[in-house]
Amino acid sequence: MKEQKKFVEDITSMDVDFAKWYTDIVKKADLIDYSGVRGCMVIRPYGYAIWENIQKQLNKMFKDTGHENVYMPMFIPEGLLQKEKDHVEGFAPEVAWVTHGGSEKLQERLCVRPTSETLFCSHYADIIHSYRDLPKLYNQWCSVVRWEKTTRPFLRSVEFLWQEGHTAHANKEEALEETERMLNIYAKFCEDYLAIPVIKGQKTDKEKFAGAERTYTIESMMHDGKALQAGTSHYFGDGFARAFDIQYTDKNNELQYVHQTSWGVSTRLIGAIIMMHGDNNGLVLPPNIAPIQVAVIPVAMNKPGVLEGAKAVADRLGTKFTVKFDDSDKSPGWKFSEYEMKGIPVRVEVGPRDLENNQAVLARRDNGEKIIVSLDNIEQEVADLLVTIQKDMFESAKKIRENNTYYAKDFKELKDLADNKTGFVKAMWCGDLACEEKIKEDAGLSSRCMPFEQETITDKCVCCGKPAKKMVYWGKAY
Amino acid sequence: MKEQKKFVEDITSMDVDFAKWYTDIVKKADLIDYSGVRGCMVIRPYGYAIWENIQKQLNKMFKDTGHENVYMPMFIPEGLLQKEKDHVEGFAPEVAWVTHGGSEKLQERLCVRPTSETLFCSHYADIIHSYRDLPKLYNQWCSVVRWEKTTRPFLRSVEFLWQEGHTAHANKEEALEETERMLNIYAKFCEDYLAIPVIKGQKTDKEKFAGAERTYTIESMMHDGKALQAGTSHYFGDGFARAFDIQYTDKNNELQYVHQTSWGVSTRLIGAIIMMHGDNNGLVLPPNIAPIQVAVIPVAMNKPGVLEGAKAVADRLGTKFTVKFDDSDKSPGWKFSEYEMKGIPVRVEVGPRDLENNQAVLARRDNGEKIIVSLDNIEQEVADLLVTIQKDMFESAKKIRENNTYYAKDFKELKDLADNKTGFVKAMWCGDLACEEKIKEDAGLSSRCMPFEQETITDKCVCCGKPAKKMVYWGKAY
Repeated sequence: MKEQKKFVEDITSMDVDFAKWYTDIVKKADLIDYSGVRGCMVIRPYGYAIWENIQKQLNKMFKDTGHENVYMPMFIPEGLLQKEKDHVEGFAPEVAWVTHGGSEKLQERLCVRPTSETLFCSHYADIIHSYRDLPKLYNQWCSVVRWEKTTRPFLRSVEFLWQEGHTAHANKEEALEETERMLNIYAKFCEDYLAIPVIKGQKTDKEKFAGAERTYTIESMMHDGKALQAGTSHYFGDGFARAFDIQYTDKNNELQYVHQTSWGVSTRLIGAIIMMHGDNNGLVLPPNIAPIQVAVIPVAMNKPGVLEGAKAVADRLGTKFTVKFDDSDKSPGWKFSEYEMKGIPVRVEVGPRDLENNQAVLARRDNGEKIIVSLDNIEQEVADLLVTIQKDMFESAKKIRENNTYYAKDFKELKDLADNKTGFVKAMWCGDLACEEKIKEDAGLSSRCMPFEQETITDKCVCCGKPAKKMVYWGKAY
Repeated sequence: MKEQKKFVEDITSMDVDFAKWYTDIVKKADLIDYSGVRGCMVIRPYGYAIWENIQKQLNKMFKDTGHENVYMPMFIPEGLLQKEKDHVEGFAPEVAWVTHGGSEKLQERLCVRPTSETLFCSHYADIIHSYRDLPKLYNQWCSVVRWEKTTRPFLRSVEFLWQEGHTAHANKEEALEETERMLNIYAKFCEDYLAIPVIKGQKTDKEKFAGAERTYTIESMMHDGKALQAGTSHYFGDGFARAFDIQYTDKNNELQYVHQTSWGVSTRLIGAIIMMHGDNNGLVLPPNIAPIQVAVIPVAMNKPGVLEGAKAVADRLGTKFTVKFDDSDKSPGWKFSEYEMKGIPVRVEVGPRDLENNQAVLARRDNGEKIIVSLDNIEQEVADLLVTIQKDMFESAKKIRENNTYYAKDFKELKDLADNKTGFVKAMWCGDLACEEKIKEDAGLSSRCMPFEQETITDKCVCCGKPAKKMVYWGKAY
């Protein structure tokens, strides 16, 4: 058991240093490697396989709702970026600039896309003419670059992978419907696949996307009580359409501006999975997104019949699940630790006595429980167990959020909570930027969202005491 | 039929101007839109769907041969690019340079990856330690940038999408085996899916990849007799390993350098499909790669029962193939032209008389043939027809190549062929760069490859008359 220890000792305990625990896991579970470029990471096969599963499922959900994939250039000419005033103000300070092609200086600088609204708008102006051309429901999978000062793998990096949906509609109603539809898809995906419960709501004006009229968000709470924005969906009104002159002829032969949306999620979701479910033995992956769902490990491999018996079990399970059969010459203890570190939902142990008794041991990664099952119906046993694990992981994530969500009626309560607890604070707000800024400055909490499911805690703003307009979730954010 | 005409008149005939015909098709078939960035294109949904089908199939072939996907940074620090001498000489003149992040000037310039050998090497140096770590069989799907002066959609663009495989092996034999394996996968993919016959061979030293010891290539001939390099696979020896210090401890506990390969195909394949199979009515897509395999079009839609009857046919076919059912209010003639332009392999026409007779008309896109089939077993009829079309397209592509492949025994013959024909010229070569350069300069032909299947035409070099070493395919290339 010496080797097993070694593996585990290497990661920092999450109670000692949550940030260090996190970076230990991304390295030790072989998700990433650091690269020679500041803030850019190498996403290794195991990390990328999680992203591929995310892509596969979201792609299906996007296509089922009528969206099509496209690919836009990765460069945006400076002049194009500047067309929408709020948008350029939000993004210009954090873009990478290409100034030379080969040895030649460019006449106009190009930025590497931080997001592609301007490119989609320019294309839409080209291809949208009539109401028959609407709606346009486009999405792209690509990498984007934002020149962040401090970076962390997956959570905030200079380059990251994401999808960005960009849609154009005949009117406000349809565009708002789309904005909500996509937020709901994100929420469903996070809850059903990543086992991450989310709060759906609207961002305040201060926190909304540069150029948007409204930003909808899904907010989740990590293991340590901090908030993570998991996905956003923006309604632009006709602001971009006016800046880029995207007009169509309606049924009455009159020119109209389109109404637009955009929405995106990124590799940040992988960071969310780690921080939501991980523990001191490593990563814990929800079965619905795990690249490997089941690891089958022969125990006492040199005993006659064990290798063949375990292999037969792996082959049977392999027809239903993604299975890793490990017959390498490492010790079972080493393998147990390795697959714990990698967060594989179910470990199946098959030893000589198990085979004698026509059974196997199933070990759950999420809570460490072991059960003995008959080999006769092991496929069904594993299928049921994966469903249970997925459900339990979601429930325990929900409990973390419930246990770390507080109410504040006045500023003193808010400040006390901010000083002594990490979690969400629900409190009323008058809608003024000044109060939002004071709460940030004096209590260190930012507004996470105005949830769609409103409650009335008091009728006064937690900060200024004036009449309240909205109940807001406040928190410390990643 | 007026509308139908209109559509067709819009594209230039391929005999009049092949280049113009090509760009007409990429626009009219809705494959791309030009963007505001020189040499960068918008890949529209229909074009991107072809790319997604290419990706899906190649991904399966890569994974079946043990390869894993990863993602590397898009930026390469100037110092890293310079580590391998030949490589930097080949690529530095044509890269885009990032010099500023936000408002800050970078201490070291970053180039946007033109290819990622240097990044993979840097990562491999980090993660390869023992023979147990080998082989590493990695692939990535991404976009790359090369600052080309003259560009054409898909064929040569400043930014393009591709996959790049990068592998590290314990020794030369395994690396060479991999180089060949991947070339064979590319060849099989081009022939079986894209219906493009290819010649497998090795590039001359002049034409090989910057930094490679050997470059294998698949060369195809387009409709107009010009050559297109469809995919390449490179063997690097231990050159990069020495430059990047990628060493492992072998079974005898001795340090060894790894041997490496890389291989790639790009969106250029879409250009190849267009130029290989297209005609004066537009795109012609091979069934095995077409985003829409069958278009079902009701004829005389206002007659009772036609819409329902045609829809029922479309629904039945939709369970087996990707089907577009078009019940829009455009005329059948307009629809015929549109789906011809888009190259959809089979059009199914369903009119009142067809329904009366329990039949439908199947029209082939590739050769215009129409057949009448019973509705009773239309699924099987369409399935068989798609197989036939795929086969016939491959055969007729092969015939084009055969009809435009010539032999030259001496320089006069070579020069005559170069002046009067466009196609491949097979001729012997002594192996000297001087002769290769003279053939390029005086006859305008570049060496396409030294085919694996060698023939002996004469025993003398076509250029200098000295003893020949290899039979070479010469041609004009895209």
